[in-house]
Amino acid sequence: MKALILTANGFEEAELLVPCYRLREEGVPVDIAAPARGRLRGEHGYPIEADRAFGDITPLEHDVLVVPGGRAAETVAEDAAATRIAVWFIEEKRPVGAICHGPLVLAATGLMEEREATGHPSTAFALRAARIRYVDEEVTTDGEIVTSRRPADLPAFMRELMKLVHRRRAATGR
Amino acid sequence: MKALILTANGFEEAELLVPCYRLREEGVPVDIAAPARGRLRGEHGYPIEADRAFGDITPLEHDVLVVPGGRAAETVAEDAAATRIAVWFIEEKRPVGAICHGPLVLAATGLMEEREATGHPSTAFALRAARIRYVDEEVTTDGEIVTSRRPADLPAFMRELMKLVHRRRAATGR
Repeated sequence: MKALILTANGFEEAELLVPCYRLREEGVPVDIAAPARGRLRGEHGYPIEADRAFGDITPLEHDVLVVPGGRAAETVAEDAAATRIAVWFIEEKRPVGAICHGPLVLAATGLMEEREATGHPSTAFALRAARIRYVDEEVTTDGEIVTSRRPADLPAFMRELMKLVHRRRAATGR
Repeated sequence: MKALILTANGFEEAELLVPCYRLREEGVPVDIAAPARGRLRGEHGYPIEADRAFGDITPLEHDVLVVPGGRAAETVAEDAAATRIAVWFIEEKRPVGAICHGPLVLAATGLMEEREATGHPSTAFALRAARIRYVDEEVTTDGEIVTSRRPADLPAFMRELMKLVHRRRAATGR
């Protein structure tokens, strides 16, 4: 089992740090990918290192995808290589968690028609424009896709995402 | 089950956010206490709300104590009301987790003689001065006290702390 976080400068700190360390606590290594390798800063300036560039990620390398929010998610949603990565996960039905502005990246795949998702209220219009059935709930799970609205939803978001991670671990034996 | 975080301005963001949301994921409500109620800023400016002032915490109200690092931990270690809270937990053998500069608060209780602990390498001298047996490991558990050195140790820190939380839940039925 290996997880991938797609982000960029301006990530929402809690929405990246909490899933990242939670997965590592569970023994799941986490790669952080961004437009380029190297130092990233969160919305408040918190520093992390991106170990990978979007363009260097190969299909089926990771089991779980996480897309945190913040302005970062808009950068990710506009990046063709990052969107392609999200497409692989959705087509392969591997666990995906997106929170706050993160669901914009799912919308950009064009694969979310008639799927149910939530996200930050300010993204509702864009998500509906991508034909997503937007719901205003702390967490929504549709198949292997878990979405939440904001940092305060992280406990519910992580509970649902970890269920999918455990289910995938049981199914694959990884 | 209820947890308490002791902190102040200048907390290390990951060391506060990760345990806080991890405990809430587990269904354990978390109170954040500081010298005074209200807005706190992390080392990089991340904002959180302190729901309680140290002076308003009453003994035995909480089951688990967490002390994150950052400059905040020095403020906490010098606060008599905060130190008294740490004394209650250690005397009552309730789970305590301290990371980075957080173990300075445990040292300030005067109850750590001959106990084993780790912490940020820059605190080793102060911890040894409090007669703590300082070890340089990602996590050390001595009885109900779990300590770690830095954010990168959070996965190991949370694994050990959650073991104590689950053990206490089983023992108390809370």
